[in-house]
Amino acid sequence: MYRPIYFTLLFCLFFSLNSSANDGYKLWLDYQPIQEQSLKSEVKSLLEGIYFFGENPTFDAIKNELNLVAKGMLNSDPIYSKDRLQNTTFWIGTREQLSQVLSLTKQAEIKALGAEGYWRGEIEFEGKSYYAIIGNQPVGILYGVYNWINSIQSNTFNKSIEFADAPKIKLRMLNHWDNLDRTVERGYAGFSIWDWHRLPGYIDPRYIDYARANASIGINAVSLTNVNANALILTTDFMKKAKALADVFRPYGIKVFLTARFSAPIQIGGLKTADPLDPEVIEFWKKKTDEMYSFIPDFGGFLVKANSEGQPGPHEYGRNHAEGANMLADALAPHGGILIWRAFVYSHEDEVDRHMQANNEFEPLDGKFKDNVIIQIKNGAIDFQPREPFHPLFGAINQTNVGMEFQITQEYLGQATNLVFLTPMWEEVLKSKTYRPTPSSTVGSVLEGKETNQKMTLMAGVSNIGTDRNWTGHLFAQSNWFAFGKMAWNPEITSEEIAKEWTELTFGQDQEVVTKIDEILLESHETAVDYMTPLGLHHIMGRSHHYGPGPWVMGGRADWTAPYYHQADSLGIGFDRTSDGSGALDQYAPEVVQNWGDPHQIPEKYLLWFHHVPWDFKLKNGDTLWEGIAHHYDRGVKNVRKMQETWASLESKIDPEEFDHVRQLLEIQEEEAEWWRNACLLYFQTFSNRPFPTDIEQPEGDLEYYKSLMFPNAPGI
Amino acid sequence: MYRPIYFTLLFCLFFSLNSSANDGYKLWLDYQPIQEQSLKSEVKSLLEGIYFFGENPTFDAIKNELNLVAKGMLNSDPIYSKDRLQNTTFWIGTREQLSQVLSLTKQAEIKALGAEGYWRGEIEFEGKSYYAIIGNQPVGILYGVYNWINSIQSNTFNKSIEFADAPKIKLRMLNHWDNLDRTVERGYAGFSIWDWHRLPGYIDPRYIDYARANASIGINAVSLTNVNANALILTTDFMKKAKALADVFRPYGIKVFLTARFSAPIQIGGLKTADPLDPEVIEFWKKKTDEMYSFIPDFGGFLVKANSEGQPGPHEYGRNHAEGANMLADALAPHGGILIWRAFVYSHEDEVDRHMQANNEFEPLDGKFKDNVIIQIKNGAIDFQPREPFHPLFGAINQTNVGMEFQITQEYLGQATNLVFLTPMWEEVLKSKTYRPTPSSTVGSVLEGKETNQKMTLMAGVSNIGTDRNWTGHLFAQSNWFAFGKMAWNPEITSEEIAKEWTELTFGQDQEVVTKIDEILLESHETAVDYMTPLGLHHIMGRSHHYGPGPWVMGGRADWTAPYYHQADSLGIGFDRTSDGSGALDQYAPEVVQNWGDPHQIPEKYLLWFHHVPWDFKLKNGDTLWEGIAHHYDRGVKNVRKMQETWASLESKIDPEEFDHVRQLLEIQEEEAEWWRNACLLYFQTFSNRPFPTDIEQPEGDLEYYKSLMFPNAPGI
Repeated sequence: MYRPIYFTLLFCLFFSLNSSANDGYKLWLDYQPIQEQSLKSEVKSLLEGIYFFGENPTFDAIKNELNLVAKGMLNSDPIYSKDRLQNTTFWIGTREQLSQVLSLTKQAEIKALGAEGYWRGEIEFEGKSYYAIIGNQPVGILYGVYNWINSIQSNTFNKSIEFADAPKIKLRMLNHWDNLDRTVERGYAGFSIWDWHRLPGYIDPRYIDYARANASIGINAVSLTNVNANALILTTDFMKKAKALADVFRPYGIKVFLTARFSAPIQIGGLKTADPLDPEVIEFWKKKTDEMYSFIPDFGGFLVKANSEGQPGPHEYGRNHAEGANMLADALAPHGGILIWRAFVYSHEDEVDRHMQANNEFEPLDGKFKDNVIIQIKNGAIDFQPREPFHPLFGAINQTNVGMEFQITQEYLGQATNLVFLTPMWEEVLKSKTYRPTPSSTVGSVLEGKETNQKMTLMAGVSNIGTDRNWTGHLFAQSNWFAFGKMAWNPEITSEEIAKEWTELTFGQDQEVVTKIDEILLESHETAVDYMTPLGLHHIMGRSHHYGPGPWVMGGRADWTAPYYHQADSLGIGFDRTSDGSGALDQYAPEVVQNWGDPHQIPEKYLLWFHHVPWDFKLKNGDTLWEGIAHHYDRGVKNVRKMQETWASLESKIDPEEFDHVRQLLEIQEEEAEWWRNACLLYFQTFSNRPFPTDIEQPEGDLEYYKSLMFPNAPGI
Repeated sequence: MYRPIYFTLLFCLFFSLNSSANDGYKLWLDYQPIQEQSLKSEVKSLLEGIYFFGENPTFDAIKNELNLVAKGMLNSDPIYSKDRLQNTTFWIGTREQLSQVLSLTKQAEIKALGAEGYWRGEIEFEGKSYYAIIGNQPVGILYGVYNWINSIQSNTFNKSIEFADAPKIKLRMLNHWDNLDRTVERGYAGFSIWDWHRLPGYIDPRYIDYARANASIGINAVSLTNVNANALILTTDFMKKAKALADVFRPYGIKVFLTARFSAPIQIGGLKTADPLDPEVIEFWKKKTDEMYSFIPDFGGFLVKANSEGQPGPHEYGRNHAEGANMLADALAPHGGILIWRAFVYSHEDEVDRHMQANNEFEPLDGKFKDNVIIQIKNGAIDFQPREPFHPLFGAINQTNVGMEFQITQEYLGQATNLVFLTPMWEEVLKSKTYRPTPSSTVGSVLEGKETNQKMTLMAGVSNIGTDRNWTGHLFAQSNWFAFGKMAWNPEITSEEIAKEWTELTFGQDQEVVTKIDEILLESHETAVDYMTPLGLHHIMGRSHHYGPGPWVMGGRADWTAPYYHQADSLGIGFDRTSDGSGALDQYAPEVVQNWGDPHQIPEKYLLWFHHVPWDFKLKNGDTLWEGIAHHYDRGVKNVRKMQETWASLESKIDPEEFDHVRQLLEIQEEEAEWWRNACLLYFQTFSNRPFPTDIEQPEGDLEYYKSLMFPNAPGI
C-alpha cells in the first residue's frame, strides 16, 4: 500500500532543515500576514496605540502575544503608550481599572461575566472612540485578547460589534499521563514535554508556548503527572521542579495539579500505613500539602486514581472512597485546594460487570464527599472506547461535585497514525439525556452544575501532547486539543463550529480547503467506529498496547479479554446488559432503560453494547446483523479512502510539509483500517458461519496471520 | 545559584512560538544572507548558471542543498541549465562525466583523491572560465559542495583558489545507542529520533535533515541501534523499517549498520544454541544476512558487543572472539559487508585489572580475524572517562583491522547540562605516541592504517543526537557532533581549526564572538577534568546513571565501584598500574612504560591513573598532592564562572533564544561543578586528614548530604 520510499524522499527533500515549510509547531497561533487591506489597516491602527491600565505578569503575557501578532500579521512592532489619552486607540484593563470611563450599566454587565469572562467593543470617552478589551481579572482579558486575535485570523473582526463571553465550566483541565522518566502512558506524540531532569534550572521555551496554546483555548488547569502515580513527585526535589513550571504557567491563568499516590505515606513518608483515618497519615498529607503550597501558593490540588487497576487506595484499610478523598481534601482545604477523585474504579476481584462497578461504589456515597472534592467520571463506563453510551453516574449522584474526563489522546482511536476528530463523539455524550436530576437534564447540563447548585465544575481531558515537533504527532490531532479547550469552555458548542474554527486558524480561509477539511474532520469519527467497533462493539483491541484489532484476546483476568465484551457465539454477538443479563442498563434513569432496553428500539450504534443479538437479527436497513457488521467495517475502509482522495485534491493549497505529513499518515490509516476489517470479520465469521455480503471488498489474509502479529515496542505503555 | 524563575520567564517570553529566534535546529547549516557584496554577487552568478553533468539521487540531494543555499543566502532560486554551454557558470559532475573538458593531469590528480575525494576550482574551456566541483563519485561531489558552502559561510571563498580534499579514514561512523522503545542509552538529548513504530510508512522530514547534517561533515555510516542489542531488529518487520531509513540516507552517501545480538539465533531463530561453529547457527546468520541485503543492497554490516557487561558472546560456547567475529564476517563477506567487533570487553569473573582485559583477550588473536572484520577500540582502556591515556591495544595488534570508538555523548562529561568541547581530548589521544608498529607511530597514524597496510579504517563516535529540537540537548554539544565528523575525515586536524570553523558556522563571523566562544570551547575540557577527575582520577561518578560525583560508590561487583579505581587510603590515592601494581602499564610499548613508569616523570594529568601516590607527594608546582587535588577542583569551578562571564559579555551579539539557553545551562554547570568539588574534596579529606588550602573557596555542605542524593529518573539509562 505504501508508495515506493524514494518517491517520498524526493517529495520531502524540498522542505527540509532550512526551508520555511510548516512543521506544525505554531498550532492555531500561526500569525500570518493579513491579506485584506481594510482589516490590516484597522489592526495596525489598534496595535499602534495600545494602552494598558496597569501592570501585572498577565499583562506582560498579553504584550508578548501582541508583539507576536504585530510581527506575524503586520511585520511591525506594536506601540505602547504611557498615557491613556495620548495617541491611543486600544485600551486594555480590568473593569476596576477602567471604572472611570465605563458606564455603570457596562460595569454591571462586565461584572456579571465572572472572574474569567471578558467584554470587547468600542467605548466612547470625551468624544473619542476607543477599542477596549476588559475583564474582571487579568486572565479574563487574556482570554478576550486571544478571542480578538482569532477574530482577525478568521477575518470576522468588526470593531463596532460588541462581544462578551465567559466559560461555563470552572476547571478546564488537561490531565497529562506523563511519567517521571518522560515516558507517557497512552502517549503517541513522542515523550513527555516535562524535562524533569533539567528542571528547575532549565526552562525550555516550549513550556511557555504550551501555556500560550492552552490559554488561547481557555484551559486553566493542568495535572502534570500520570494518574498511575509515582510518589516521588511529592518529594521536595520534585516540588521545586513543579514550582518552576507553575511560575511559567501562572501569568497564563493556568494552575498546576499533581497526582497523589495514595500510598505515598509509606513510600516517601516512612510510615507503615496509608490508612486515611490514621493520625500520622493525616499529618503526613497535611505537612506535604503545606510544603507544596510553600512552593506554589496557588497550587491547584491533587488528582487521585485509587483502588483501580492495582493502584493503592483506601480499600486496603477497609475505608471507602469518601474517606480516602476527604482526608486529602481536608489537607488541601485551608489553602483553597481541590481534590479530584477518579470514578474509574473496577476490580478483577469483583465478578460484577465492570460497567456497573463505579455506580455501585459511588452512588451510596453521594453527599458524603467534602465540598472541595470533585468526582471525575469518564465519558463512558468502560474505558474511552471508540464509542460509548454516556456513563450512568452522570445524573445518578447529585449531591456531589462531578466532572467529566474525556480522553484527547487516541488510545483506542488510532493512536499515532489515524486522523480522528473526536468532537462529534464528545458532543454526542454531552447532549445525551440523563433525565436526572431533571427531565430535561443532559450530561452537559449536569456538568455545568446549575441543576444541582454544584459549586465546582470540571472538564478534564487526557492530554495528547508530547515532544513531537507538532506537539500531537498527527497534525490533525491538534484539532482534538483545540476542541477540548473550546468544549470545556462551552459544552454547548457544536462540532461544526469547532471544526470550522480550527480549520481556518490552521489552514487559512480558502473556502474549498475549509469545506473539504471540515468534511474530513466531521466524518472521521464515524469512519473510525465503522472500521474498529461498529454497532456497539467494544474492547476488542490488541492486548495491553491497544494497538490494532484483537477480538481474540484471551487469558489473564477476564475483564481484560475481548470475548468478555463481545460475547460472540454461534447464535449471535453482543453483551446483554439488560435486566436479563448483567443489569447494567438499570443503572440509568427509567427513561433510558425504556429507550435502550428493546433491541428493536435502541439506536443501532449502541445495539451490541446492551444486547446479545442473533446473527440474523434484522437491522433497520434490512441487513441481517451479520451483513450489517460486514457493511460497517467495509464502509469504514472505503471512507478512509475517500478521506485520502479529498486530501489529495487539496495538494496545491496546502503547505507541502503538512500535505505530505498527512498524506503519509492517511496511507497508514488505510492499511490499518483494512487490518481492522479483515481481522475482525475473519474472526467473527468463525462464530457466524455465514458468508460475507458480496457487495463488500472481501476480507483478505489469514486469521492466524493477524493473530500472530506482535508489537513489542508499541508506544504508549 | 539560580536566578528567580520569573526573571527567566520574562526573558523567554519574547522569543517563543511565533518569533524568528534561533532554536538551534538548523545546526551548522543555517544559511544566512550574505552581507559582503562582492561575495554575494559571485555566489549569485554561480547559482544562476548551474549545470549538472548527469542525473542521480545524490545530484538531487545536491540540488536540494543548492536550493536551500540560494533561498537562505540570496533569497532566490538557483537556475539549472539543460545545456552545459548555455549561460552556465558552475559545473558539477564526476571526473568521468567531465573527462572531455579536463586535462589529463587534472584527471589524474582527481582520480588520486579516491572514491570520496573532490576537487573544486576553475576550469578553462573554449575560452571561457567555469567554476567546477568534481569528484570520482557523486558522493565526493556532495562533500565538495558542502565544503564550498562552508567557504561561503566563513567568507573565505575565492574562485581562483583550487581546493582538493579526501578523507583519511574510510568508515566515519555514528554509533547510536538507541533502543527499539526509543530510549537512548547514555542519551541526554531527549529520545531516539528513530520512530520505529511509524516506520516504514512514515518518513519524518528529520531523517533527511539528519542525513544532510552528517554528509556535510563527512560521516558516511551509521549504526542505528544500541550495542546492548535487541534481536528484534533482525526480524523482517524491523528490516523493512531499517530499509526505509537506508533509502533516505543512500543519496547522502551514508550506509546503515545494525547491531547484532550474538544470541539472536536463540531469540528469534528458534535454535537452542548460538555457538558460532554450529552449522545451524552459521546457516541462521547467512540467511539473516541474505535477507538483510534483499532489503538493503548496500547494507554496511553488523556491529557487535559480545561477552562484555553481560552481553552474550562466543565465550558461552568455549569459542574466542575471532571465532565469533569471523562467523558473522563470513555471512557478510559475499555482500561486501563489514563486521565490527568491539574490544570493550571485561568480565566481573576476571579478577585482573579491568584495564588489562581487552589486551589480554585480543593480543593473542592478532591476525586471526577475517579481512572484513574491524576491531573497534575505545580511546581508553576503562570507559570514556573525562580523560584517559590512550588504549594499549592501539599499536599492540598490527595484523588486524582496528578502529577507534570515541564517545560524543557526554556520559561522563556533564551529560545534559555541561558545556564541554571534546575535541582537545580526542586530539590528545590521536596525537599520543604508541611507538608501535613504528617508532613514530601515534594513535592517529595507526588508525589511518598506512603503517600496517590496513585495508579497512574506521572512526566511530557514539552519537549525542536525540529528539531535542536542537538535536544534542546543549547547543554547544552540536560542536562535538561536528568535530567528530571533521576529525574522522582528517585525524590530523587541530582542535583550534575545528573550534573556529564550528563557531563561525554557528554564530557568524563577528571576531569578538568567535574569539570568546573559541576560548570557552578550548578551555572547557580541561575545566571539566579539573572539577570532575583531575590528575588522573577516574570512575568516581554516581552509580549506574553516572550523573554527578560518587567517589564513595561501593557494593556490587568491585569493578563498578569507585574505590576500586581511586584506591584512596590514609597514605595516599591512585591506582598503581606499574609492575609493582596491576602491571597494566606493561601492556604499552617500552618507551611508554619508561615515560609513565616514574611518578615524577609521568605527565601529571595521568599521575593517579598509574600510580598510588602519598598525600604529601610534591607536584611540579610545589603543591603537595593533596593541595594539588584541591587546587584543581577549585580551579574547575572558577573556570566555569569565567565561562559564564565570557558568555554574558556576548549577550548583545547572540540570538536571544540561544543566549538564554546557554546562560541557563551554564548556571546549572556552575552548580554541578561546585557539587563535584565539594563532594569529592569532602570525601577525599576523610582519607587525607589534611586541611584545605586557604586560597581555595572552602568546600561547603555536608558529605552525608551529598551521599544521600538520589536521581532515580536520571536520563540515559
